[in-house]
Amino acid sequence: MRTIYLDNAATTWPKPAEVSRAMVECVEEYGANPGRGGHKLSMKASKVVYGTRVKLAQLFGIRNPNDIFFAANATQALNQAIKGFCKPGMHVITTALEHNSVRRPLEFMKREHGIEITYSKPDANHLFSVEEIRKAIRPETGLIVVTHGSNLLGTITPIAEIGKLAREHGITYLVDAAQTAGVLPIHVEEMAIDMLAFPGHKGLYGPQGTGGLYVRSDLSLVPLLHGGTGGQSELADQPDTRPDRYESGTLNTPGIAGLGAGVEFVLQTGVDTIREKEWKLTRLALEELAQMPGIHVYGPDRQIERLAVIPLTVDGIEASELAYILDQQYNIAVRSGFHCTPLAHETAGTAETGAVRISFGYFNSEEDVQALITALKEIQEAFGM
Amino acid sequence: MRTIYLDNAATTWPKPAEVSRAMVECVEEYGANPGRGGHKLSMKASKVVYGTRVKLAQLFGIRNPNDIFFAANATQALNQAIKGFCKPGMHVITTALEHNSVRRPLEFMKREHGIEITYSKPDANHLFSVEEIRKAIRPETGLIVVTHGSNLLGTITPIAEIGKLAREHGITYLVDAAQTAGVLPIHVEEMAIDMLAFPGHKGLYGPQGTGGLYVRSDLSLVPLLHGGTGGQSELADQPDTRPDRYESGTLNTPGIAGLGAGVEFVLQTGVDTIREKEWKLTRLALEELAQMPGIHVYGPDRQIERLAVIPLTVDGIEASELAYILDQQYNIAVRSGFHCTPLAHETAGTAETGAVRISFGYFNSEEDVQALITALKEIQEAFGM
Repeated sequence: MRTIYLDNAATTWPKPAEVSRAMVECVEEYGANPGRGGHKLSMKASKVVYGTRVKLAQLFGIRNPNDIFFAANATQALNQAIKGFCKPGMHVITTALEHNSVRRPLEFMKREHGIEITYSKPDANHLFSVEEIRKAIRPETGLIVVTHGSNLLGTITPIAEIGKLAREHGITYLVDAAQTAGVLPIHVEEMAIDMLAFPGHKGLYGPQGTGGLYVRSDLSLVPLLHGGTGGQSELADQPDTRPDRYESGTLNTPGIAGLGAGVEFVLQTGVDTIREKEWKLTRLALEELAQMPGIHVYGPDRQIERLAVIPLTVDGIEASELAYILDQQYNIAVRSGFHCTPLAHETAGTAETGAVRISFGYFNSEEDVQALITALKEIQEAFGM
Repeated sequence: MRTIYLDNAATTWPKPAEVSRAMVECVEEYGANPGRGGHKLSMKASKVVYGTRVKLAQLFGIRNPNDIFFAANATQALNQAIKGFCKPGMHVITTALEHNSVRRPLEFMKREHGIEITYSKPDANHLFSVEEIRKAIRPETGLIVVTHGSNLLGTITPIAEIGKLAREHGITYLVDAAQTAGVLPIHVEEMAIDMLAFPGHKGLYGPQGTGGLYVRSDLSLVPLLHGGTGGQSELADQPDTRPDRYESGTLNTPGIAGLGAGVEFVLQTGVDTIREKEWKLTRLALEELAQMPGIHVYGPDRQIERLAVIPLTVDGIEASELAYILDQQYNIAVRSGFHCTPLAHETAGTAETGAVRISFGYFNSEEDVQALITALKEIQEAFGM
């Protein structure tokens, strides 16, 4: 029985065939240390790493590819951005739907370095208004951090409008694109985004172990990592040169080669095409689920466009049990639990119970949606619902 | 013409065939998010990640595999150890042969958090004595950090003796095994090592993008990364649970799968066998080079056991030019430059000129050594030396 993988918000799967091919080619044919020596293998590694930077720059409307820094995941990128930018006394505005990769670094900076945080609350549809954020601005507000899309509820944040607001007030603006890079259009120039954190292994279809951070060229952060940078070895401090300043240590060359293949797939397929397909599957699932008694779907009203993420509970069946049965009896992979977003669960009203999260990717089909619906109906019947 | 790869101190190449095979299997067959869901693919990913922990624990004499934390490279591991452990006012003893991945985090902690640093100086053979380190100990000394082996000079540090000293004085002891993990025997219990940082892509024959840190079970560090940890999502701070506390964000599952295959290769082959072969090649090269006029080898006397690392200069030829000719005309990959260790260059007397670094790995042969010697002789002749 084939696996029906509906856990794409955790990591997309499968990947385009080119991804593992690029990784193998790297390990077997030129697996040298990029930028750490001038020989041919090392040059080839550097070239591939730079090639991935160029593709990412194209995807996100970034002028200089060297303003992109590779990281092990979006979490590292967000830690670099938040801990590297916040100063004691600074006020930060964020939202109540942030992942722990934003909330925990901010709370750490609050405890240890005396920043202040305002968590903007969403409306009844779990949506954020620019007006609410505007009201939270104070003279000492130095940073606005928002997730572009909730990993639990699928709500989409109006990042361009918030960017405009931030720019008007001279406030630095960080967007967490964990759920949206490769899925929704992002253009850092047009959207006035100063820092953009993204994972490589979700909507960009690269392998796990990859991600990155864009930092506007005139911003300087305290590096999260200090260490070897290839160039300017003699300095006791990190060099200012980009991308070296924020990329200490040997890069994940095979991962970055794979990420390049993933981004190439996204560029070739087109973000709009990917989005259209994901939204079609999501809408279909939402419509089917709305007709099933005993099933509760969380997030915004189903007419409102959302990411391909559907959290649900089924009366009389624990979320974890439901996920287990779907996996064991139907080979349908979904996720149950709290998805690293406790505040979002409070918002949704599932803080006590958790929820099962269904999330589609570009490689899912309408048959997958139907298989899920059929499975849910059979499970409800088996439980006598 | 086949590549003769003599840059193994930067990254080992080639890798055992199982490494890329394990990576591809991960990406193509079970590339889910480990520990982030209960479904079969995710469980398989968790199992593979834990399997690599177990192998590393076996290699390093670590009792509990969950005391090992994966990192993107040794640099990240060292940053976690140093920045997570040092407190204002603390005195740290280290050596003048440290890589920038130790020196720069320490200098950062000195500038920003008021620690004090003593750089212990080596003797005429570039070796460190336990006595020198003992003399540097003060009441406020909280940490001793030493590299197990110099990436430039190949000198080997007596880590067990220093461990004994640190333990006697109740000082926490961090070893940087960047050049020695998989090459020299390391046993954290027997050597009284409290923290061990290692890369995955050098002597452990894993892919780039991997590395790790062992932290003794009763030590608690400030996490370098705050973020999602799968479990205990509701906490605003990182959980205390290991390994979650130090592993925020999605792990590099394909890389860790590949690292598992690399460590398995090391365990099967045996560290002693690997070391014996590398030392045989190194000794052969040192003996040949010693008979060549105009060639200067740096590091300890050639009778003293060292890592498979030989820095050299050739009269009348710039280091970078020599490396270039070896690469272009002979397909011999070596490295020239400063190798991220400015202090070691001062020690060696090559701070102005840099040096060419030859470094052997397990997959090199005596023919490779001979090819290098022949090439060097031809180049000297061509330059009229």
